[in-house]
Amino acid sequence: MPVTPASELDAADPLAPFRSRFVAADDPSITAYLDGNSLGRPLAVTGQRLADFVTGAWGRGLIRSWDEAWLAEPVTVGDRLAEVTLGAAPGQVIVADSTTVMLYKLIRAAVGARPGRDEILIDRGNFPTDRFVVDGIAAECGLSVRYLSAPHDAGVRPAEVAAALSDRTALVVLSHVAYRSGFLADMPAITDAAHEAGALILWDLCHSAGALPVYLDACDVDLAAGCTYKYLNGGPGSPAFGYVATRLQEELQQPVWGWMGAADPFAMGPEYQPAAGIRKFISGTPPVLAMQPLKDMLELIAEAGLAAIRRKSAALTEHAIELCDELLAPLGAVLASPRAATDRGSHITVDHPNFAAVTKALWGQGVIPDFRPPNGIRIGLSPLSTSFAELEHGIKSIAAELGNPPA
Amino acid sequence: MPVTPASELDAADPLAPFRSRFVAADDPSITAYLDGNSLGRPLAVTGQRLADFVTGAWGRGLIRSWDEAWLAEPVTVGDRLAEVTLGAAPGQVIVADSTTVMLYKLIRAAVGARPGRDEILIDRGNFPTDRFVVDGIAAECGLSVRYLSAPHDAGVRPAEVAAALSDRTALVVLSHVAYRSGFLADMPAITDAAHEAGALILWDLCHSAGALPVYLDACDVDLAAGCTYKYLNGGPGSPAFGYVATRLQEELQQPVWGWMGAADPFAMGPEYQPAAGIRKFISGTPPVLAMQPLKDMLELIAEAGLAAIRRKSAALTEHAIELCDELLAPLGAVLASPRAATDRGSHITVDHPNFAAVTKALWGQGVIPDFRPPNGIRIGLSPLSTSFAELEHGIKSIAAELGNPPA
Repeated sequence: MPVTPASELDAADPLAPFRSRFVAADDPSITAYLDGNSLGRPLAVTGQRLADFVTGAWGRGLIRSWDEAWLAEPVTVGDRLAEVTLGAAPGQVIVADSTTVMLYKLIRAAVGARPGRDEILIDRGNFPTDRFVVDGIAAECGLSVRYLSAPHDAGVRPAEVAAALSDRTALVVLSHVAYRSGFLADMPAITDAAHEAGALILWDLCHSAGALPVYLDACDVDLAAGCTYKYLNGGPGSPAFGYVATRLQEELQQPVWGWMGAADPFAMGPEYQPAAGIRKFISGTPPVLAMQPLKDMLELIAEAGLAAIRRKSAALTEHAIELCDELLAPLGAVLASPRAATDRGSHITVDHPNFAAVTKALWGQGVIPDFRPPNGIRIGLSPLSTSFAELEHGIKSIAAELGNPPA
Repeated sequence: MPVTPASELDAADPLAPFRSRFVAADDPSITAYLDGNSLGRPLAVTGQRLADFVTGAWGRGLIRSWDEAWLAEPVTVGDRLAEVTLGAAPGQVIVADSTTVMLYKLIRAAVGARPGRDEILIDRGNFPTDRFVVDGIAAECGLSVRYLSAPHDAGVRPAEVAAALSDRTALVVLSHVAYRSGFLADMPAITDAAHEAGALILWDLCHSAGALPVYLDACDVDLAAGCTYKYLNGGPGSPAFGYVATRLQEELQQPVWGWMGAADPFAMGPEYQPAAGIRKFISGTPPVLAMQPLKDMLELIAEAGLAAIRRKSAALTEHAIELCDELLAPLGAVLASPRAATDRGSHITVDHPNFAAVTKALWGQGVIPDFRPPNGIRIGLSPLSTSFAELEHGIKSIAAELGNPPA
């Protein structure tokens, strides 16, 4: 069956008009941006939003803005993020720190709440920072790490997790969408399995938040963390978010005791008294400037609707796979992502031994996918900013490079 | 002796022209900004710098900018900060995290390097987050915290520190400039005393970086940390900086193992191998957007020169004390800062039982000092953005409020 032309898919795409809300959407020097799952494009309003912030809340509000808005923003922006993208009621999400630091704090808090258990269960396909944080915590707390090994083109299934769980398991740490294969894990079933074994679970949402609906409360998830610079378009190094279910907030204690997580930060008292609720998971001064771009993107996602975003995401990854089958497979490339749309997030990875060199060549042409070792091109499809046409152009460009390897 | 009129001091001030480089410097609604030591004013170029960043390096460079510049920025911006403000050779400073998280990582690294010693020495006048972080680490690592108690209007002297040091002391944590009194500690003598006792020392530079010369290398300091939103004008919640002396970088291990502190972040290998040098103290993705404003301020400081900045700072605090003596002392206010200019940083605090209400009233008038419990007005004097005239207006306004208490 011939692949549907991208022009037809774009013409029928109800979200197509959103693309023009992003910076340089039609810049002729960027012919295919296929890495919105690494760094989302800025919104066209973001530059003005930041400039206004500089002359307004910062430049004229000055320290008065802390009392008027900023002190609350880790939670108010977190609540909006929770509502729009995470399926979480208010008071459970903060925006703060880097993803790595947030993971450290939440994982330490979780293992501290299961003192009789000495094992953390994790997947070898987890993003490196998650594995490194877990290894570091295991080393300092005298815990073992048990590794699941998912297939290269997929991720872990509930039965595999269930088989590895035991009364030694303190915590399970998994990615909702795998950073390399794009495999979408079964959050409800795996969460239930962890709970049945008496363990807590932390989901890394870096590659799902903003690209597909997440239902943290409905799945009874314990902890979650993610970044805001991928499908939430917060900008390079924008702050992380962290979720702690309300029912666990009193029990869990995080290790980085800072003034902004204290019950009364401006009492400046002699001893740390953790704040009530989610605020106790905050440590330092909130990264207020850095969380401004995120606010506009959350409103754009709310306007488009996550169900529609997910539909387009599935259509984009489907189109990508069809084009790979038609254009790249004959050149020796191998799909390293699930073929079933229900098993995928919003990106796919294709492997070929020449892809490191190919990626380098493509970047110079304004065709920008990502390279993931040892030999994968990762094609990220940010539903609100990616057109079918640029996806098609991107894969044709990969094929052209593969077919015309440098001498 | 009559107090010199502010108009004369401003006319003779060689740094006076720098004030116009800041946003809203002459906005009639802000008649006296006396809290640049809590949140520095933005530079006039900052809004455009950020807008250009959005359309340029982020919006058009996209992920290519990571390779071209951003991955190096925690160290390149750190090196410039080290050169311009800290008296430190390259390769010893990173810009990352919040101050609280940076303190956590460096203090954990330090106490881990002194395993036979079980005590951290700290001053009760340290900023709350420093004390809280130390208390948290002591609790988790089974260490004791020994508290020095400095006078309310000063800080700790070398002899007091020396008397409290012993072969139990793993680490000394002190503020270079005390957040409340403004007391400037004797960094060389106290650092020497710590080393003589076999302890390491960490200096909190939040209230000194950018306001007075610091000589970390010459003083043989081990570790330092500070924020960039006070005299470095990085914006609300801008990232912290951390300093680890080259001679200690191999020995010290920080606890938050993240991909950006790994030897090869993009190898995505199975195990964490810390990077060589200062990079191993990085954890998560660098806060690139949030560190842009800082860059321009570092160049402005370099242009003005820290020696000239320090001279103006001393003149400003001197003028503030003279005005307090003349206008506030007769109304019952008490200076809570050192009278000797060599003992002061760039702010003073004055106590009076009514100052909580007074501060509130002043903020509404565009006179903006800070309030510090239990009863202090803190007057921060950011040398490049504060005029003698606004200082005089500010203290006259405090006097007017004190003299006219609400019924």
